[in-house]
Amino acid sequence: MIELDPNAKTPLYEQLYAALADEIRTGRRAPGTPLPGRRTMAAQQGISVNTVDAAYQMLAAEGLAEPRPRSGFYVQKTYGMLHSRTRRAPVPPPAASAPEKPAAPAPLYDLSTGSVDTALFPARSWGRIQKELLYRSPELLQRGEMQGDAPLRAQIAEYLSVYRGVDCTPEQIVVGAGIEYLLGCLAHLFADGMAAIENPGYSRTRTVLQNSGIPCTPVDIDRDGMPADALEKSGANLCYLTPSHHFPTGVTMPAPRRAQLLAWAAAKPGRYILEDDYDSEFRFDTRPLPSLQGMAGPDGPVVYLTTFSKSLAPGIRIACMVLPQSLLARYRRDFATYANTVGRFEQQTLCEFMAGGYFTRHLARMRLAYKRRMELFAAALRAALPGVELDGVHSGLHFLLTLSGAGGERAMVEAAARQGVRLRGLSEYYLARPELCREDTVVAGYSALKESDVQAVAEALAKAWR
Amino acid sequence: MIELDPNAKTPLYEQLYAALADEIRTGRRAPGTPLPGRRTMAAQQGISVNTVDAAYQMLAAEGLAEPRPRSGFYVQKTYGMLHSRTRRAPVPPPAASAPEKPAAPAPLYDLSTGSVDTALFPARSWGRIQKELLYRSPELLQRGEMQGDAPLRAQIAEYLSVYRGVDCTPEQIVVGAGIEYLLGCLAHLFADGMAAIENPGYSRTRTVLQNSGIPCTPVDIDRDGMPADALEKSGANLCYLTPSHHFPTGVTMPAPRRAQLLAWAAAKPGRYILEDDYDSEFRFDTRPLPSLQGMAGPDGPVVYLTTFSKSLAPGIRIACMVLPQSLLARYRRDFATYANTVGRFEQQTLCEFMAGGYFTRHLARMRLAYKRRMELFAAALRAALPGVELDGVHSGLHFLLTLSGAGGERAMVEAAARQGVRLRGLSEYYLARPELCREDTVVAGYSALKESDVQAVAEALAKAWR
Repeated sequence: MIELDPNAKTPLYEQLYAALADEIRTGRRAPGTPLPGRRTMAAQQGISVNTVDAAYQMLAAEGLAEPRPRSGFYVQKTYGMLHSRTRRAPVPPPAASAPEKPAAPAPLYDLSTGSVDTALFPARSWGRIQKELLYRSPELLQRGEMQGDAPLRAQIAEYLSVYRGVDCTPEQIVVGAGIEYLLGCLAHLFADGMAAIENPGYSRTRTVLQNSGIPCTPVDIDRDGMPADALEKSGANLCYLTPSHHFPTGVTMPAPRRAQLLAWAAAKPGRYILEDDYDSEFRFDTRPLPSLQGMAGPDGPVVYLTTFSKSLAPGIRIACMVLPQSLLARYRRDFATYANTVGRFEQQTLCEFMAGGYFTRHLARMRLAYKRRMELFAAALRAALPGVELDGVHSGLHFLLTLSGAGGERAMVEAAARQGVRLRGLSEYYLARPELCREDTVVAGYSALKESDVQAVAEALAKAWR
Repeated sequence: MIELDPNAKTPLYEQLYAALADEIRTGRRAPGTPLPGRRTMAAQQGISVNTVDAAYQMLAAEGLAEPRPRSGFYVQKTYGMLHSRTRRAPVPPPAASAPEKPAAPAPLYDLSTGSVDTALFPARSWGRIQKELLYRSPELLQRGEMQGDAPLRAQIAEYLSVYRGVDCTPEQIVVGAGIEYLLGCLAHLFADGMAAIENPGYSRTRTVLQNSGIPCTPVDIDRDGMPADALEKSGANLCYLTPSHHFPTGVTMPAPRRAQLLAWAAAKPGRYILEDDYDSEFRFDTRPLPSLQGMAGPDGPVVYLTTFSKSLAPGIRIACMVLPQSLLARYRRDFATYANTVGRFEQQTLCEFMAGGYFTRHLARMRLAYKRRMELFAAALRAALPGVELDGVHSGLHFLLTLSGAGGERAMVEAAARQGVRLRGLSEYYLARPELCREDTVVAGYSALKESDVQAVAEALAKAWR
């Protein structure tokens, strides 16, 4: 029996949540055991089922309990993985419950992926364009086109054609406030579909697609990316790929594999590849392969997706997708009454930023800066950690770091954290079958790493892993 | 047999689309008759099913054909309503097919709803804040909180509490790039739900909810809004309402009806009211009733939604919702990895705009300006059109105009268009049972009407309807 105080300032559901969280954290509720049914708990405590449900949902949100379909809530089994998982959660728990979880000390050096160095952002040009537009173009206060402003779509189509080999007209482009939003729109077009996703890969994509009603099945990649026969066997009709730079292994899909996957898509109507051209801007040595979309053509079974939040700044929310003709008419019909999700001043600022050549110059500068940083960091790591292997250094803003004899992935991540370095184990990116993961490997992002810190990080890691 | 040329520059699906569109427009295919099945058509023409499908989808997007579930495509029945409907479509058809549709002449005076007078927008203050932030706050380039930046949520919570009687903490607020996006998130939380929506009402809401997998059932409103017994009978567990200013009739829901609807929601777990506080800022004579959310309390079964695109400018995409505690934990769990859809500079600009008192002053100025415009317009109409009845003048940015003896709604809309005045008939807002619509009534929006045009519009309408 848990003691709840109906007169306390803290709501009942938070009291119940706190008591249960404590029992789980201290091991009084064993991993894998079921929590009492919601009705049972409500009757025992003399509270409403909704109150119990709110508490259970909070436990699930914190990763302490796990809902199972038609079977209620269970104490999280893999409590060991939990700690790092909750620490990664970008959203703080409700204020009232925060004191219960001791705050993780802020890392001195953050090698997580997904951030960019905003010092490289050309704030002055961006700000000047934005300000001029605000005074000069009051028409941007009005509602714009559903797919995004036509001049911006024309700029994007041209850029994607020249730099990514995308074969499309501006009419096929849809601008939106992030890839997550665009995937949600696609999920509607693909109702009743099932998606194969790369394993390892983005858990975010699985979350978004599943939230939008598309079940996902992870397919193990090999050294060329997703194998077409495994994809065929999965029974999926959709396939989410990061062919130009697989996340997180950095594999670039070679042309024969691309052809096999396009053949898979062409073999049956209703099959589509969702090509996330993640990170394609950051390639240091080789020319990037043109997009799958370009191989398939404007009527091919590929939806191309890319984001400007990576190449400009995460705080700027602009992404786009290129719809094949076969999906365009239905998209336009079903979304005809929608407003575009990107503010028009921001759209037009990006448009002029591209038209004025600022965007490609900005990319070129970033490539140089990141390449230099990667080379410095890799050299420092090789010097400090004899026997270290670095993979995927030719593109993207992170690489894989393998070091045998340092106690294995988990121990490496924890020891690094104790030295103030935040990074993640490769197995954390496995959506299924983590036993396939390469041993002793962590993912090291360097986009937010200052050049002046490179040496210190290498030394901290050497200390951690010696 | 339709003649298609596989060697032409125009793709086959566009040729097929164009040929069928022509047959429909010229009446060679009768309204309401089915188009040939896709497979049949494909076999007849020796083309792929995908090609036929693309052509049919384009016909549907143009409003020339209508898909029926499990039954294929039919020539649009109400061809008479079509013309105005396609003219309203915000998205141009693909460039290649554009020449087939003669462009409608631009109206001289636009009395449609949904626009605002952007001359009232305080571009100078907004621009100054935005520019300062760009130079002063580079941290805004980084990714922000999933629900929106905390300082903005605190400002919104305070504003909604003071001005709209909303009872919530900043933790319950979710900022998003438009109500459509937020409704899509809600649809995930309400999977397997069914929504009752107001009839007449927003067709947009139905589109968004249905696109997101929530079937909708229109419930006829009476003079107090949606009746609780009809709602109960509908079998829905969700109910979308515009209680402070029903769209488009302008009815404000009285307190007893509010209590009845809240009692409906409280009667069974899993029932929720979606309160769209549309237009609540624009109320000229009376104090607005506090929100339903405030009556229900922070744990009550109400999700409150409102948008800043109406009170600031349609080109600025910021809306928010207030989640009850019972939904919050699950929302946070399922959307934990999402990025917020509103750019952080725009969020922070609004935040400082509110904190500095600009927002409430802006609203006060807009209320005065629109009230004056409404009074001028109403007076001019009453003088020019003897016998005219105007309803819903006390709030919102449009009213209902009823005039008997002018040939009925359809004739009124068409005659007005011939005089250069664009407005819509009330029956166009009926999602079902248009026969219930009040006769001889059109919806007249004045938000985009210049004061200097008021007299001319009244005279044009007098000429149209004499």
